[in-house]
Amino acid sequence: MHLEGLQSVGSAIQARKRKIEVLLLKSGMNLKRIAGLLEQAESQNIPIKYVEPTELSQITHGRTHGGVVALCSRKPLERFQDLREILRARSGYPLLLLLEGVEDGQHLGYVLRSAEALGAHAVLLKKHLWNFDETTLSRASSGAFERVPVIKFSEADEVRHFVKYDIELWGCIAGVKKDMYSVNMKKPLALAVGGEKRGLSGKVRERCDGFMKIPMVEGSSSSLSLTHAACLLLGEAARQRRIVK
Amino acid sequence: MHLEGLQSVGSAIQARKRKIEVLLLKSGMNLKRIAGLLEQAESQNIPIKYVEPTELSQITHGRTHGGVVALCSRKPLERFQDLREILRARSGYPLLLLLEGVEDGQHLGYVLRSAEALGAHAVLLKKHLWNFDETTLSRASSGAFERVPVIKFSEADEVRHFVKYDIELWGCIAGVKKDMYSVNMKKPLALAVGGEKRGLSGKVRERCDGFMKIPMVEGSSSSLSLTHAACLLLGEAARQRRIVK
Repeated sequence: MHLEGLQSVGSAIQARKRKIEVLLLKSGMNLKRIAGLLEQAESQNIPIKYVEPTELSQITHGRTHGGVVALCSRKPLERFQDLREILRARSGYPLLLLLEGVEDGQHLGYVLRSAEALGAHAVLLKKHLWNFDETTLSRASSGAFERVPVIKFSEADEVRHFVKYDIELWGCIAGVKKDMYSVNMKKPLALAVGGEKRGLSGKVRERCDGFMKIPMVEGSSSSLSLTHAACLLLGEAARQRRIVK
Repeated sequence: MHLEGLQSVGSAIQARKRKIEVLLLKSGMNLKRIAGLLEQAESQNIPIKYVEPTELSQITHGRTHGGVVALCSRKPLERFQDLREILRARSGYPLLLLLEGVEDGQHLGYVLRSAEALGAHAVLLKKHLWNFDETTLSRASSGAFERVPVIKFSEADEVRHFVKYDIELWGCIAGVKKDMYSVNMKKPLALAVGGEKRGLSGKVRERCDGFMKIPMVEGSSSSLSLTHAACLLLGEAARQRRIVK
């Protein structure tokens, strides 16, 4: 596969989770702008090849790569059993985001950016629904995909193991009385958000320790998109925990 | 132009801001599911035509229209001078969202959904950058585009008129000391968010009464997407004002 754009490629090289086969740069591009990237690539002995714009455009999905492309392996995703180590590497109460019903890589990318910016330790997604364009995903995430642990879980079975880590699972659904402001988020917490069509699956709901809603203006026929709902939940957790500055 | 999907089409008929030429329905579709829509269309004397799926797919952008399409006029957007009336029609302190650098209709659609759900009175965008696929916009907004006032302003000149309405303009930028939690949002307020590449324009900055940041985890190289930043700002305003339930 490939990554495109300075943010994606630079983050991938820095994160060292992928094998970078070769760094492709548009011939004649301004190398000063990417001095940091070149230095990193050299220190890791990544081959650099200068190519014509037409060669790049045959590979790339969009036109916003800015002349920077990497051919590389896929990013190995974390497994549920890696959770202990992931949590150990970070301070503060665990904060996880569990998503169902994400429809495309771009949306997931935006969520990963917010997850990183607002202090989530990992994002969990259903294994059998992993069908994303990972180039688009990394690009939309502005590199956060390279850094944030992404765990594929199988059919919510593994969700019951949260209890091992003393993590409470809270589902976000409409129509419940409790709103997110009245949930104490200063404890180990996994926030579950479902897709817009089907909401949270029965299997995840069964495992939830509680449910909350995101309060909205009364009487409006409105709703929130999945990624905005996830973002508001993470924002509230960050606010309560004062982990952001 | 056309609208597609039950949410878009139903919202447009209900909002009565567009002239609906004809409602196209997939022949043989389950009419029970859209009984409310049919009733509305009949009461407004909107012609209904049953067409083959192939005819629909020649018109539509996506495949998620569910057999419901409307041929209609464009939605007339509000002008800056309509602001007084828009604000008069709503109770509570004015809450406006001013956006620069929105790149596509889908993103704007998601923002409009959140704006409606979180109680914004209107969304303002630069006139000369209005270049959206309005079918996609309405679809992504889940109908909110049909209801939320959207004002095109010219080159930030008109932003100075906020002062007439006693509305304070606050810009969201990185690197300032004040964070959104410490800004008193219980007053007439316009929140300005800039694009990811260029941020807020000089002309809008000049008019700002203050600046704030969205606090993030320290040390992360992360940032927020434009629409997630807008969503978090509106969420904080809604939280402080307790206008959501």
